[in-house]
Amino acid sequence: MKKFISFLLLSILLLATHAQLTTRVRAYRVGHERDLLLTYKSFLEIPNIASDQTGIKKNADWIAALMKEKGISNVQLLNPIINGMPPAVYGEVMTPGANETIILYAHYDGQPVDSSKWMKGLHPFKPQLANGSLINQATIVDWKNLGETIDPNWRIYGRGASDDKAGVFSIINAYGILKQLGVKPTVNIKFFFEGEEEAGSPHLHEIFEKYQQLLKGDMWVICDGPVHQSGRKQVVFGVRGDTHMELTVYGPKRPLHSGHYGNWIPNPAMDLAKLLASMKDDEGNVLVKGFYDDVVPLTAAEKNALAKVPPVEEQMKKELGVKKPERNSTLNESLNLPSLNINGIQSAAVGSLSANVIPTKAVASIDLRLVVGNDWKKQQQKVVAHIQSKGYHVVYSEPTDEERMQHDKICMVHLSSGYNAQKTPMEHAFAKRVVNAVNLAIGYEAVQLPTLGGSLPLFIFEEKLHAQPITIPIANHDNNQHAENENIRIGNLWDALEIFTSIMTIGK
Amino acid sequence: MKKFISFLLLSILLLATHAQLTTRVRAYRVGHERDLLLTYKSFLEIPNIASDQTGIKKNADWIAALMKEKGISNVQLLNPIINGMPPAVYGEVMTPGANETIILYAHYDGQPVDSSKWMKGLHPFKPQLANGSLINQATIVDWKNLGETIDPNWRIYGRGASDDKAGVFSIINAYGILKQLGVKPTVNIKFFFEGEEEAGSPHLHEIFEKYQQLLKGDMWVICDGPVHQSGRKQVVFGVRGDTHMELTVYGPKRPLHSGHYGNWIPNPAMDLAKLLASMKDDEGNVLVKGFYDDVVPLTAAEKNALAKVPPVEEQMKKELGVKKPERNSTLNESLNLPSLNINGIQSAAVGSLSANVIPTKAVASIDLRLVVGNDWKKQQQKVVAHIQSKGYHVVYSEPTDEERMQHDKICMVHLSSGYNAQKTPMEHAFAKRVVNAVNLAIGYEAVQLPTLGGSLPLFIFEEKLHAQPITIPIANHDNNQHAENENIRIGNLWDALEIFTSIMTIGK
Repeated sequence: MKKFISFLLLSILLLATHAQLTTRVRAYRVGHERDLLLTYKSFLEIPNIASDQTGIKKNADWIAALMKEKGISNVQLLNPIINGMPPAVYGEVMTPGANETIILYAHYDGQPVDSSKWMKGLHPFKPQLANGSLINQATIVDWKNLGETIDPNWRIYGRGASDDKAGVFSIINAYGILKQLGVKPTVNIKFFFEGEEEAGSPHLHEIFEKYQQLLKGDMWVICDGPVHQSGRKQVVFGVRGDTHMELTVYGPKRPLHSGHYGNWIPNPAMDLAKLLASMKDDEGNVLVKGFYDDVVPLTAAEKNALAKVPPVEEQMKKELGVKKPERNSTLNESLNLPSLNINGIQSAAVGSLSANVIPTKAVASIDLRLVVGNDWKKQQQKVVAHIQSKGYHVVYSEPTDEERMQHDKICMVHLSSGYNAQKTPMEHAFAKRVVNAVNLAIGYEAVQLPTLGGSLPLFIFEEKLHAQPITIPIANHDNNQHAENENIRIGNLWDALEIFTSIMTIGK
Repeated sequence: MKKFISFLLLSILLLATHAQLTTRVRAYRVGHERDLLLTYKSFLEIPNIASDQTGIKKNADWIAALMKEKGISNVQLLNPIINGMPPAVYGEVMTPGANETIILYAHYDGQPVDSSKWMKGLHPFKPQLANGSLINQATIVDWKNLGETIDPNWRIYGRGASDDKAGVFSIINAYGILKQLGVKPTVNIKFFFEGEEEAGSPHLHEIFEKYQQLLKGDMWVICDGPVHQSGRKQVVFGVRGDTHMELTVYGPKRPLHSGHYGNWIPNPAMDLAKLLASMKDDEGNVLVKGFYDDVVPLTAAEKNALAKVPPVEEQMKKELGVKKPERNSTLNESLNLPSLNINGIQSAAVGSLSANVIPTKAVASIDLRLVVGNDWKKQQQKVVAHIQSKGYHVVYSEPTDEERMQHDKICMVHLSSGYNAQKTPMEHAFAKRVVNAVNLAIGYEAVQLPTLGGSLPLFIFEEKLHAQPITIPIANHDNNQHAENENIRIGNLWDALEIFTSIMTIGK
């Protein structure tokens, strides 16, 4: 009983402390909104495509300088094995007396850009301010008109604005504000900002191997991705795995006149349509044999968390113009299953480029998302076996003339690399404390998702560092991540400052 | 008995006359091969894309000049209603005492070109000589090395070389040779060379209406297309009709991350695959209700002719790298049925452009070939009804947000224009005489096809001129018609001279 009372008192104290901290962080931010946003603007002006060495180096140096300015120690660029590859930017704040360490992750590189696709007036690397969402009648506002305080519904448009410079910027500034307020973190903090996440993190495992000691910690917190579609903040305990396959089905060796041969020479586009159609039933179930066999069932905690996810289905259907979803279940129930999805199909041409031909081949790109239990190589092989079960001879390079004459149907399969899913248990003690820190900052219970539908190579954290990360996304869900007109809602940046200051002062 | 004997004598006389004529034509040609080919070269050097007014006018003038030079009368350019459209070139040879008229048709325009796709050393409008087929180890030969007589297996590469300047050139020169030999035609001859066949003959019906009197005749002979794949000459009695449809199936209004939504938001590429797959069974039968209902069965003569077509199936399978045809029947049996063929499919992207998306839409271009009995509009409607039977709401323009929320599945259908099949009866008296003339020239029985698999708007001849044309193709079957590296085997040009002189001196 005594123990319980002291726990209760501690909790109340903590709550009070945090409520107070959040208020102080907010007050500080309100007094510095203009400065913060102008600094963010200059960050977004530096091109950040992973393949652009010059731009990437500038970003890394800019981040390192900001970290030093905010009083972060031991700032350095962690270089992967191969020179010229984007470095990770590292820094740390050692808290006297603390024996726990949180490592905060974000990435500073962005998806490749096609500026011609951006809306008029926008450019990926000339960040613009808008008084709302530009697809909802908002308009661009001259940076000169940026006042001292800004409507949180205003947005900044530019590559990386949400994915994921927002993470880098708010993590560093959260610490900067703590420092300004004279608040000491309760844990050691390490900062790790990756520079080639959008290129598939090709050297992350090498960096982890090389800097294993430096990157030791009790909890990795990944800041990436969008908040829940309901607008609520969320904490995500896992990601689906991912791999790709490309299937090519063959017709005649040269394009044939569809009149002179149509009805007699097989049409590869029709063959591919039949093959793909055989892979899923009308209720969205994948018909590939054994596709769901290895799935580890959801735990009670996960089921419980899913049941508490606010319903967004009607909102999303309306937003996306879709009346009937593929599966008769909630969005998040669906995302806890492996998936088979067609990313693209191509055979000859359509529209004004369409010609009277029997195409020579038809190609489909498919991606397989995986949940815990699935092995990506095994999942690919199940699909290969399915193709074979439909009478196809499977090859892994262009079929020879001999192969063409030996087999009725030929499918060339290209197997991409991939990785498995990763999930941190919802009962994970430190993770629960992070959830509490988030809840304290936001003032309500964050949505807890057992897994994100999307994929990140978080298995590398488990494999190389024996760490079980959790993810705290901060961007608005309609941020156009990976596409043209990427944007961040300014209020989401502000919320992030409160969340990360709360995490840096995490309770027991 | 007396009648029979006189018929027999006449036949022998005719055979002798024609054998003699063919020998004389050949001898004349052998003495003029170099001149003929250099003249042909200068013809091929004039660009002949229907949309290129300057080039087209030059071609028409060149043809008119050659016709006049060969002694053809009343040479004139027949202009369609709209100025600037490619004219047809007309001319005639009235034979004293003849009361029958044959009209010879060919077209001088060619398919659009993409010179970058042509083999090294070739250019659509810089005709080249080669000592065989360039895809079979032959090499380009400098025109300077053109001797007085040429191996008939040599080829000329250039746009229009086979399709269809070869027809224009050999028809005019056939008459020129007759004139040189002092041989009188047995019929009146009219010449009609179209200038926009490859653009879909958009003004042919207007020319026919305007010049109905001038274009009166007993038999139209169309010189276009390739000879039989066996290498034998063929006479073709009809063409399939043709029409097109484009189907667009919808997914989410914006491209979605395939991880965050895959399994829940329907994938339009998968939906399209299922829709297309439902249209044909595994034996190549179209499953659209009533698809074969209106087909007029083949006549005994047509069945008989088909039975006599030399088998080319094994050769074609090998040449095209296809082990198993779509239908378990001969090529030409298949072509006597209506067809449904996918010309192209597109949804998002494949290969290096593929992204992790659920595409917003998937598009298929399909063409429907028709046989006599089918009506193109009715055939399109059968496919529309099929789409509806699969649960689709069919629209004819982009679906509105309201439509998206009202219907589970939406397919936008674009119906192209089209035309019906045309077939001249194999018992047609004059057509039989033309077949005889061809047989006499070639010394064996030409392949007789009830229909070509491909389509030409020959219904216009029936509709506007009440004429029933037959087609005599002369180009080698591997002439790359409509594509890069178009070519004519020189021997095929020579054969054409013998065939058309024989037709101009056709017997009763």
